[in-house]
Amino acid sequence: MDKDLLIHNGLLVPMSEGLPVIPDGAVRIRENRIMDLGPAASVDASGNPKRIDAGGGIIMPGFVNGHTHAPMSMFRGLADDLPLDVWLNEHIFPAEASRVTPESVTQWTVHSCREMLLAGVTTCCDGYFHEAEVARAMAGTGIRAVAGQGVIDFPAPGVPDPLRNVDHAAAYVENARSISSRLHPSIFCHSPYTCSADTLQAAKAAADKARVLFQIHAAETRNEPAMIGEGCGRSVIAYLDRLGILDRNTLLVHAVWVDDEDIEIIRQRQCGVIHCPESNMKLASGIAPVPKMIAAGIPVGLGTDGCASNNDHDLVGEMGTAAKLHKVACMDPCVMDARTCLKAATIDGARAIGMAADIGSLEPGKLADIIIVDTHRPHMVPMHDVYSALVYAAKSSDVSWVMVDGRILVDAGELV
Amino acid sequence: MDKDLLIHNGLLVPMSEGLPVIPDGAVRIRENRIMDLGPAASVDASGNPKRIDAGGGIIMPGFVNGHTHAPMSMFRGLADDLPLDVWLNEHIFPAEASRVTPESVTQWTVHSCREMLLAGVTTCCDGYFHEAEVARAMAGTGIRAVAGQGVIDFPAPGVPDPLRNVDHAAAYVENARSISSRLHPSIFCHSPYTCSADTLQAAKAAADKARVLFQIHAAETRNEPAMIGEGCGRSVIAYLDRLGILDRNTLLVHAVWVDDEDIEIIRQRQCGVIHCPESNMKLASGIAPVPKMIAAGIPVGLGTDGCASNNDHDLVGEMGTAAKLHKVACMDPCVMDARTCLKAATIDGARAIGMAADIGSLEPGKLADIIIVDTHRPHMVPMHDVYSALVYAAKSSDVSWVMVDGRILVDAGELV
Repeated sequence: MDKDLLIHNGLLVPMSEGLPVIPDGAVRIRENRIMDLGPAASVDASGNPKRIDAGGGIIMPGFVNGHTHAPMSMFRGLADDLPLDVWLNEHIFPAEASRVTPESVTQWTVHSCREMLLAGVTTCCDGYFHEAEVARAMAGTGIRAVAGQGVIDFPAPGVPDPLRNVDHAAAYVENARSISSRLHPSIFCHSPYTCSADTLQAAKAAADKARVLFQIHAAETRNEPAMIGEGCGRSVIAYLDRLGILDRNTLLVHAVWVDDEDIEIIRQRQCGVIHCPESNMKLASGIAPVPKMIAAGIPVGLGTDGCASNNDHDLVGEMGTAAKLHKVACMDPCVMDARTCLKAATIDGARAIGMAADIGSLEPGKLADIIIVDTHRPHMVPMHDVYSALVYAAKSSDVSWVMVDGRILVDAGELV
Repeated sequence: MDKDLLIHNGLLVPMSEGLPVIPDGAVRIRENRIMDLGPAASVDASGNPKRIDAGGGIIMPGFVNGHTHAPMSMFRGLADDLPLDVWLNEHIFPAEASRVTPESVTQWTVHSCREMLLAGVTTCCDGYFHEAEVARAMAGTGIRAVAGQGVIDFPAPGVPDPLRNVDHAAAYVENARSISSRLHPSIFCHSPYTCSADTLQAAKAAADKARVLFQIHAAETRNEPAMIGEGCGRSVIAYLDRLGILDRNTLLVHAVWVDDEDIEIIRQRQCGVIHCPESNMKLASGIAPVPKMIAAGIPVGLGTDGCASNNDHDLVGEMGTAAKLHKVACMDPCVMDARTCLKAATIDGARAIGMAADIGSLEPGKLADIIIVDTHRPHMVPMHDVYSALVYAAKSSDVSWVMVDGRILVDAGELV
């Protein structure tokens, strides 16, 4: 780690409410924190800091991938274009049973983190099995992560006895705390249709006791209430609320089949939501009412989902897809404007996973999770508007430089 | 031009009905034509051809961008997230009036062609004004192109007198024939709501007389029948059919608001269709019934549309968007499978624009429009299925090498 750095010669896009885009901006970093930022001429450059020339590129916060299953990159492209039940029961579950081991989880977590870092993702929020291995592998790559041990009511990789699933997760959380300051353990209930009410409540209690994020896939498909069964009623969100597990430390992933009453519940309980547009489209799950949720003040971040369903870890792509999907779904070209999408991929994702005090925007005192986006390739020229360029024209391959926690992990588009 | 080349050490994806994917494939090229292709061991390598090592990448036909307005890259990001009428009347039309000159058209056409070539687009189908300049600029870059002079019933750049619009286009076609063997002139009527019935018929007659492609934006927005007025009735396609302008040399762009009867008309008349999913989404135009059109046997290609509406020239992105958009629109994860999308971006696009005898797939005797897609970046690993990898994981930045008409135009990801 360089202890004292100055990033300069770039278009600064802080993604902080109070701070505008700054054409010739600079960021001063000390250790792993942002000390100062603003117009280059006004930023303290004393003390001979190491200088990083942004080359006229965009200096901005790293992307927050609000939902993934990092080890599942091992299944990328294994089975596409299939009905959900065939995909899951005939391909993914058998593949998981035979191929998911501590070793494979480690290998493919590292692989996914390399993919994410190259694409400018500086924080990811994961949920899978063998999560102790996931967490250690993630920490080793330098990425910042929330790593949630999966809880499900049938035998799972590393958790052969479902009766022990919550205890296993709680023990994981305690052990994982010491892995790295960049690694935040979490508990991830797979879904309300694969976890009983008792399991959901016990897992949420364990997460609360340990003061960690509770994650759950919720309201992903139309028939989820039927899959949950009698206790659910018509609304998955209302069901989860009756169980008492919705609060500001609960992250709802997908939230596709939510109506106005559900949105009001989510708002009142202050849950975060992660929207995975490409996964929802590819699996034909449906279109989440994201503009309504954002209008209600719910923090909505973006996620890629795992590579078995998407098939990549590209937040730049998710931003563009989110922008365009909701325009056509609402038949209104004004919804999900470029800045809103960029917020979802950065600060609002950080809000959703409870980390906005430290990451998601460039502000003095926040952690130094920063990327530089190259603006010289033809598709980025001309740049009449930087938000538009990032959402409607940029590719993740334009990310040329990535810093997490004050450490440079990608330089000149390659892993350091 | 190297007169004799052998591309080897790659995964060959010919996109030709009779030819499977070949793991260790090779392509022999002489002058600007493919002489032979197949498993490396079976392809004639005699005569010491220059060898191109594909480095284990994917060897495939270049992408066909079935619809663009290349000079409009000058307006990329100028005005996004706006209602269609505000976007068009307050931003695009005024900007065109003040900034579209022969010089700017040349400059930004070259820019767009560079963008397209870097993204693996070897053929584009364009329609704009000052098309003589567009055509010469395109030919200069080495790309293959259909270049259509715009026809519209009000004063336009380079065509101040609308009464002369068809004559102007016809004269352009005659003059443009000699520019390059790679340049195919065409006539492009902007739309049935900006061209009268007389104009449409005269322009189609001029295109037929010159034996060139007739292009038209058709059925893009829901209110197009109302914009056309009394003569139209409820169906834009039926209206165009009554005018007698639908046949196999007519290319319908967008075809969003078409019903089953319209699809049957398009099928019977053997028109090509270009689907622009990202443009239709971003402008909130609607979702074209593409799976139905393909099922009917209509050749449906993919287009980016101009950079004022999309905002890039990336067919890889359009493939992924098309695959996912129609799955969620149909609530069926099986529609628009990866291979279908890759066909739309290559051979079916070539069919739609009437060039399938020469381009769109790798076959002996076809023109040497070939790209290599790198497969080493993390997002392309593992590769359980090459079609899936290209549609759901690849980025256009993975295109590492591009040949058009036997000439290498991109090498190691950079323009030669």
